[in-house]
Amino acid sequence: MVRAQIVGATGYGGLGMVELLLHHPEIKLTSLLARTDVGKPLSDFFPHLRGFCDQVVEDASPERIGVDVDLVIFATPDRVGMAHARQVVGAGVAMLDYSGDFRFPTVEQYQEYALRHPSTAGRPHACPELLGANVYGIPELYRSRLREARLVGNPGCFAVAMILGLAPAVKAGVAEPRSIVVDGKTGSSGAGKKPSPVHHFPERNENVTPYRVASHQHTVEAVSTLSGLAGEPVGLTFVPHVVPTTRGILCTSYATLRRPLSSAQVHDLYREFYAGEPFVRVLPMGSFAALKSVQGSNLCDVSATVDEANGRLIVISAIDNLMKGQAGVALQNINLMLGFAETLGLERTPVYP
Amino acid sequence: MVRAQIVGATGYGGLGMVELLLHHPEIKLTSLLARTDVGKPLSDFFPHLRGFCDQVVEDASPERIGVDVDLVIFATPDRVGMAHARQVVGAGVAMLDYSGDFRFPTVEQYQEYALRHPSTAGRPHACPELLGANVYGIPELYRSRLREARLVGNPGCFAVAMILGLAPAVKAGVAEPRSIVVDGKTGSSGAGKKPSPVHHFPERNENVTPYRVASHQHTVEAVSTLSGLAGEPVGLTFVPHVVPTTRGILCTSYATLRRPLSSAQVHDLYREFYAGEPFVRVLPMGSFAALKSVQGSNLCDVSATVDEANGRLIVISAIDNLMKGQAGVALQNINLMLGFAETLGLERTPVYP
Amino acid sequence: MVRAQIVGATGYGGLGMVELLLHHPEIKLTSLLARTDVGKPLSDFFPHLRGFCDQVVEDASPERIGVDVDLVIFATPDRVGMAHARQVVGAGVAMLDYSGDFRFPTVEQYQEYALRHPSTAGRPHACPELLGANVYGIPELYRSRLREARLVGNPGCFAVAMILGLAPAVKAGVAEPRSIVVDGKTGSSGAGKKPSPVHHFPERNENVTPYRVASHQHTVEAVSTLSGLAGEPVGLTFVPHVVPTTRGILCTSYATLRRPLSSAQVHDLYREFYAGEPFVRVLPMGSFAALKSVQGSNLCDVSATVDEANGRLIVISAIDNLMKGQAGVALQNINLMLGFAETLGLERTPVYP
Amino acid sequence: MVRAQIVGATGYGGLGMVELLLHHPEIKLTSLLARTDVGKPLSDFFPHLRGFCDQVVEDASPERIGVDVDLVIFATPDRVGMAHARQVVGAGVAMLDYSGDFRFPTVEQYQEYALRHPSTAGRPHACPELLGANVYGIPELYRSRLREARLVGNPGCFAVAMILGLAPAVKAGVAEPRSIVVDGKTGSSGAGKKPSPVHHFPERNENVTPYRVASHQHTVEAVSTLSGLAGEPVGLTFVPHVVPTTRGILCTSYATLRRPLSSAQVHDLYREFYAGEPFVRVLPMGSFAALKSVQGSNLCDVSATVDEANGRLIVISAIDNLMKGQAGVALQNINLMLGFAETLGLERTPVYP
Repeated sequence: MVRAQIVGATGYGGLGMVELLLHHPEIKLTSLLARTDVGKPLSDFFPHLRGFCDQVVEDASPERIGVDVDLVIFATPDRVGMAHARQVVGAGVAMLDYSGDFRFPTVEQYQEYALRHPSTAGRPHACPELLGANVYGIPELYRSRLREARLVGNPGCFAVAMILGLAPAVKAGVAEPRSIVVDGKTGSSGAGKKPSPVHHFPERNENVTPYRVASHQHTVEAVSTLSGLAGEPVGLTFVPHVVPTTRGILCTSYATLRRPLSSAQVHDLYREFYAGEPFVRVLPMGSFAALKSVQGSNLCDVSATVDEANGRLIVISAIDNLMKGQAGVALQNINLMLGFAETLGLERTPVYP
Repeated sequence: MVRAQIVGATGYGGLGMVELLLHHPEIKLTSLLARTDVGKPLSDFFPHLRGFCDQVVEDASPERIGVDVDLVIFATPDRVGMAHARQVVGAGVAMLDYSGDFRFPTVEQYQEYALRHPSTAGRPHACPELLGANVYGIPELYRSRLREARLVGNPGCFAVAMILGLAPAVKAGVAEPRSIVVDGKTGSSGAGKKPSPVHHFPERNENVTPYRVASHQHTVEAVSTLSGLAGEPVGLTFVPHVVPTTRGILCTSYATLRRPLSSAQVHDLYREFYAGEPFVRVLPMGSFAALKSVQGSNLCDVSATVDEANGRLIVISAIDNLMKGQAGVALQNINLMLGFAETLGLERTPVYP
Repeated sequence: MVRAQIVGATGYGGLGMVELLLHHPEIKLTSLLARTDVGKPLSDFFPHLRGFCDQVVEDASPERIGVDVDLVIFATPDRVGMAHARQVVGAGVAMLDYSGDFRFPTVEQYQEYALRHPSTAGRPHACPELLGANVYGIPELYRSRLREARLVGNPGCFAVAMILGLAPAVKAGVAEPRSIVVDGKTGSSGAGKKPSPVHHFPERNENVTPYRVASHQHTVEAVSTLSGLAGEPVGLTFVPHVVPTTRGILCTSYATLRRPLSSAQVHDLYREFYAGEPFVRVLPMGSFAALKSVQGSNLCDVSATVDEANGRLIVISAIDNLMKGQAGVALQNINLMLGFAETLGLERTPVYP
Repeated sequence: MVRAQIVGATGYGGLGMVELLLHHPEIKLTSLLARTDVGKPLSDFFPHLRGFCDQVVEDASPERIGVDVDLVIFATPDRVGMAHARQVVGAGVAMLDYSGDFRFPTVEQYQEYALRHPSTAGRPHACPELLGANVYGIPELYRSRLREARLVGNPGCFAVAMILGLAPAVKAGVAEPRSIVVDGKTGSSGAGKKPSPVHHFPERNENVTPYRVASHQHTVEAVSTLSGLAGEPVGLTFVPHVVPTTRGILCTSYATLRRPLSSAQVHDLYREFYAGEPFVRVLPMGSFAALKSVQGSNLCDVSATVDEANGRLIVISAIDNLMKGQAGVALQNINLMLGFAETLGLERTPVYP
């Protein structure tokens, strides 16, 4: 059994990983760490886990991080993982980080991201020597590299939906690379467990609010990834909106077609691109992705069609932000890193209704 | 006192008008008509109105429509108003119709719309001789014509949000007219009072679902109106989504700028365009329109900004679909038609929280 | 015009009063005070009020409170109003307080309440000499005294629903006074504007949570009021629950009947008790109170029936907690205090759907 | 592998069983039947199951029911199961029925239920000879009999919450048996997949509505079961309410104590009663059951306390109505019938947040 440690176990991101590992046949959760609220069972913070995980949360001290375990998952905000990566990776322990710390291959790309992210404020990377050894965790694009990786940067939730939605078209070169618009809709859980005015129930309920208009930090990794696929610079305007759901991200992407294509042609292109993928479902023509078809699962549903009158591609992609957008894709990446079946522990059907 | 009649009083659209007229000092509701569920007080269908409107709903027979009243509001589906317009208008009675029947000035434009709308199925207009005499009910654009009108086609709810969001930019010629993308989010009440699988609570709650992708009928009137403002053909890809709120429409519109403009310049352009408008609020720079700031009111909040890196205009416009998107704009139009102060009976603040 | 001042203008309770007074023909809002967030227009805190109330919020200093106004509304937590009451009332200014400070006629009763309330922690009343001069603001019970009052203690939101639901039965002596159970359901706005874990959207949505089980502080004023009506001690078990709505309180009250009564008899008793009341609607037999029929209005809907097999009275009462449970009943009380028509500024219909 | 057939596979109840059996290691779903919508894959009705269950739904004809299978689950409305039970049970096939058809041991008790249920309208039982051979499916009470059963009547969702909440107190004789009040709160999914005005999103959202006040059919089985445990007749007033959640039932039960007991004593009594139960969690003193702690799981959370001032027991019990209230308890019953580990396929943690 692989021994796993979660740093940041008392947030939604850590919780998602705990729940998945409780049901994983090859990985055992041996250590739960957090900065605050330590010394009590995890089920004190998450009463639904009473009887499932009453393990005590310990202090996330440097002396505990990465010790006596085979795998560390940093379910922490930006800049925590990078402070410990040298030690963890140096000890030969596999490491996956939820934040933006290890999503980029170069200091320059990281810097562009850091300038965009409100909480990093442009500070330089604290562990630049590991950039290049890290792998960005989109299994559908980087599967073979993930199988060799010891340090994975888990993708941003919106980035997963954008990239999986646009990759086939961008890779095939059918879309004008500077014409892309992505309109994102996300539930409230993406903002985490900490209460805030924006997610206070009376303000959030019956509300739709745009935020970080054309300035969301996940745009950086999406643009970088898509530019790599396209072989030319991609320009992308992204506006995220919070909608009154707990879970889920739905991205509607628009791009001008370089040459006329029918919906059927685009649909075929997508089917082919994702053939055999265990967690991407390209929907039949005329069906469109919706949140409830993926919530609770590691699936990404994708539907692609064409507005023929305007020569425009429309792609709708939907994920559960806490699963395929966070803990689920993390476990998928971990399964690849550790040589397990990619779907192990991720077989659950979406929750419906 | 003006005597008003509502045809279709037992739907959400009719209800909205009833509620507004109950508080209107110059218009008296003298007749409530419907096709089904007649012979009972309106408060039997809408228990919240018990004590406010216990007037009996009568059969919407041709003998009753337009008789002994000064104003008829058709809060009815497509093709009902057109069947009675000749008689009503011929009798010198003012008429406002909620449906698409009188939104277009020519048979040809109506036909384009009718082909798009699922429930009209391309049937020809039943009262073509009145097309041309009708006025399309966007007060911010057609105020002076509405003051002379006797037959008003109330706009589609999505069309209101799209048109008010894009009119300033399109009129000023700053946006590439064929580059426009509108991503719409609407609450459930827009679909009316009749239960359906899509709006069944367990399916709608926690869900976001795109529908009529690039084929929504309101696109026709928006394109036609904006093309008129632009003086050239406008191309527009519109994808509406249902989000789990009862009320509200928020449209996020994207367009490529013809020449570089700053957010401040665009903001000034919008401020100027809507200066003095009683129901359009151009938000300060850095603030963005949100549903909860307009729900329950006749307001349209508009925020305009620029994604400078990609040379793209972003406009966010928000309305209450049952108010500025339906009954509210209808009363605003009626006030204009009848010579009352435009804001009469529409002064209410949004409901918050 | 009466000049009114609101202390605590930036919370939900103050906001409710602002919105009502904006539409009140006889009262002018001349002063908005708060402890924090001062120096900015109210619409900075509540963007929906942009253009309706851009008045600047001033510091709630003792030098400002009650000065140059005819009426002060304390929309403040417990123990703020009592600290200023001597000064305000002494200056001949009318005063209404939202908190528990002036709901009780004696020091002893206040003390019982204070021991129950988490935020008062049993501290003694700071202005005991005014107890006795104050009137508890339930217009349906104390209308004539409210007309003479200069100091009104606005009731707790749950207390309004409990008292209006049970008063007719308790007054008539048909219920065993120690058999009463009240099961309360409330929306999230009752907890105020400040974010907290319990009202964080991802925790609140799809959740129902009991709280302050058999220990809610509103029980004290309900028991005291009902005991007064009964002429004997009333015993009442009250369990409140938060449900995922923004607004609304629905209380389901149960009591053993002293003697067999039919639903029709109980219904008649309720009809008679509330005959002529402008804001209490006793629903027809077979209809039951529901939140959506009252939200946004100052109404209390009441339905009373009998479980004949078990000899038990069942009463369901519903209010909007921010209206009839707070700002609405406050204005009703103020109208009485100031000699205006009781319904002035409160005529609005519920918001539906 | 046990071969299972679901009759009524296209409703929420059938769906719940499909999802559980997809993950069950010992039971294989070999046949999906329904009355309408046949001939298409199940994933056409439930798009979230695309790729998980694309099995074609067949016509629920008598020739198919119970044929070539070892187990039939009737996820059907009342009176369907009883029409086929003779044939199924006669062929030696294990049968579980979701409806009220086989919840009662005698014709008389069934009749009392049937008179109460709107859809059965008092019609006599169609298969009375099997009454007595059936077992009522509450594993915590009837485990040993369920191990021998071939015909199980799955309990009503509200009955599960009521019975598990009250059984310990009633069995121990600490509560006055005729003093019980149960106030129920349920999500919308309990009403099934068919759209209706009450569950139309704009009517359901932001609403709380009581229904079947003191007349809900599940009361009959709860009273009958609790009377059996008490050894004397139990009287119970039950008022269910719909709250705006998709899933979940929370029942708050009140009863007068026969003799003074502390919260600690009651808590101990409950702990002891449910010691070792895999799916009932008695919460620590001071913690109260809430929907989100059980949704998506087969758990029933129970919290018991005492209102000492009024000598009243308060018990709060919470379940997922589609799991412990329907498909989950059904599988628990089936595991017992078929000799599998009781928890097989039911180990999943609740979904949170």
